[in-house]
Amino acid sequence: MKVAELRLGLEGVAVAETNITRIEGDEGRLIYRGELIEEIVKHRTFEEVVYLLWNGEYPDDNSLKQLKKDLTARREIPDYIKDIIKKLPKNMNVMSVLRTAISAIEVSGPAWPPTQTQAIEILAKAPTIIAFYRSHQNGTPEIHPDASLDHVENYLYMLYGKKPEHSHIKALEAYLILSADHDMNASTFTARVVTSTQSDIVSSVVAAIGALKGPLHGGAPSEVDNMLDDIGSEENVEPWLRKHIENGEKIMGFGHRVYKTYDPRGAALKEIVKQFSQENKLFNLSLIVEKKAIELLNEYKPGRKLYPNVEFWAAGVLRTILPVELYTPTFCVSRIAGWCAQIMEQAAHNRIIRPASIYTGKMPK
Amino acid sequence: MKVAELRLGLEGVAVAETNITRIEGDEGRLIYRGELIEEIVKHRTFEEVVYLLWNGEYPDDNSLKQLKKDLTARREIPDYIKDIIKKLPKNMNVMSVLRTAISAIEVSGPAWPPTQTQAIEILAKAPTIIAFYRSHQNGTPEIHPDASLDHVENYLYMLYGKKPEHSHIKALEAYLILSADHDMNASTFTARVVTSTQSDIVSSVVAAIGALKGPLHGGAPSEVDNMLDDIGSEENVEPWLRKHIENGEKIMGFGHRVYKTYDPRGAALKEIVKQFSQENKLFNLSLIVEKKAIELLNEYKPGRKLYPNVEFWAAGVLRTILPVELYTPTFCVSRIAGWCAQIMEQAAHNRIIRPASIYTGKMPK
Repeated sequence: MKVAELRLGLEGVAVAETNITRIEGDEGRLIYRGELIEEIVKHRTFEEVVYLLWNGEYPDDNSLKQLKKDLTARREIPDYIKDIIKKLPKNMNVMSVLRTAISAIEVSGPAWPPTQTQAIEILAKAPTIIAFYRSHQNGTPEIHPDASLDHVENYLYMLYGKKPEHSHIKALEAYLILSADHDMNASTFTARVVTSTQSDIVSSVVAAIGALKGPLHGGAPSEVDNMLDDIGSEENVEPWLRKHIENGEKIMGFGHRVYKTYDPRGAALKEIVKQFSQENKLFNLSLIVEKKAIELLNEYKPGRKLYPNVEFWAAGVLRTILPVELYTPTFCVSRIAGWCAQIMEQAAHNRIIRPASIYTGKMPK
Repeated sequence: MKVAELRLGLEGVAVAETNITRIEGDEGRLIYRGELIEEIVKHRTFEEVVYLLWNGEYPDDNSLKQLKKDLTARREIPDYIKDIIKKLPKNMNVMSVLRTAISAIEVSGPAWPPTQTQAIEILAKAPTIIAFYRSHQNGTPEIHPDASLDHVENYLYMLYGKKPEHSHIKALEAYLILSADHDMNASTFTARVVTSTQSDIVSSVVAAIGALKGPLHGGAPSEVDNMLDDIGSEENVEPWLRKHIENGEKIMGFGHRVYKTYDPRGAALKEIVKQFSQENKLFNLSLIVEKKAIELLNEYKPGRKLYPNVEFWAAGVLRTILPVELYTPTFCVSRIAGWCAQIMEQAAHNRIIRPASIYTGKMPK
């Protein structure tokens, strides 16, 4: 038997050739299908980006109209899924609720290969599941999807039962666009491994939700949120940061494994924050913390080049829009688009993903 | 940025050092924790093997008694999970039902790290979920677990509502023991990737169920079953095989990617089949098909050395005990033991599993 080569964590091992997303860590660039993320965020809607990720190009007017129509038509969740959500234990983790409710979805057509119609069925329902669970948990009336609203606005509308503020829609849309895909992270890879057995798209998305639930993957923005809460006020920014840096503590939301310069997703979100900081005063704290943290990190750790990552700005944006327990589920609402793109690509060039291990245990006597 | 190395399918790439299972494909040996599978199947019960996989050694009398007590105490599924199962669409794939119902389980203790108590909670409930769904689907009364029966006997008892035949218990127990783990297959790997994000054990098992559902992974015994059905009678064995081999068709259940000699799991199941072929006449057909197929494959393809694999004997055994739609779910009942062993090992030496890809798509203009 050939001896396998040990690659714990699989860093630098490519499991696929992909046409979907390219990360250029040194240059701080993120590219979907040949388009730079900062341009996408500036000029495009979430629905256009979904189309881009799935089809490799932006939709023309008719294709966009069709996609929106298909999405809005599939937003309602069937009664049996509502019943299931209501049966789940009170205070179950929202990601566990989402995982279970999506697992209960029956998509149309055969289990293999995965189709865009099936992807639409899942993507359209995820926000409704979250909003329905919230209303059930809070004992507030169920808000049905509004077909006149686009994906992001409708999500906020279902959560709050009223027309959301313009700055909230724009900021959340930017966040959802730039979180939609990020190459071969742990959840996307999980989805691809499941798809590689010719399993169905629901199984793959459910598996990916489980991976995203892990704090090493989907959990970081809430830690930044705690930090911003702890800082609290503009006056407290500098003393708080000095104290924590001097104590040798990590400043949450700074530094990234891949991006060695400013995280392009963070940069795009910062633009949004700046744009709406007049309308939305809550955005200001994160702008001030960022400026001061870069300054102080450079003072205390010169040459380390620590920049805020996407989690920093995600928290900066999301904390003004959503309760903290919805950060990871909302990340999921967005990433489902990327997972489905990657699932369909895996299926189109499929090879079962089945690595090896090295046995270091006991041998028979 | 470093260029990643392309390893589609990850063949020969070891993602972990493991003390659990060793496959020696050339020698046809399968080893759990230093014990040969044929010895394990001959002398041990499913519960002893669960303990072995989780703890690295066989239990003493007290530990075995405790494990059995813990398992039987956790077999009942809570009412809300029964309600959820009843709400699911009629005729949903049993693996989708199992995935959803297990996703709805709340295990005890913190989400990280995974514990044996949590593993017991899942392992104990899986057979009950399957049996409850069957009774609901068939409109027959629910059969509650019987605490006086061991794991395997209780599973058959819940499915059929009567004391199972001795040969059925023994054959199914052998199948469950030798299916419990098989190193780094796609579902086990999926479980490890999810665990590597520090996600919870339920998320990892649910993800693995999705991978096992794929026909490239968990689906093969039912194809052998179809073949045996098609052959039907002893007189038809030779003409059926000659016709299909001469037509260049693959004989289902022969040959294996890893085992280049007799699959040790198949060999162990064959022993059981032989042992009970007097009691259970249905076992005979697979014995005759195997003998004739080896003879004819050697006649038509000399030197190819095609041996029956575990799927062949799994079908030979399972078709006399279970309806075909329960083959993969029953595989799952067993493999949960291995997944949980691998999940706990991954957690104990964790490193997030995050491979790379090679971008071959468009670049920004």
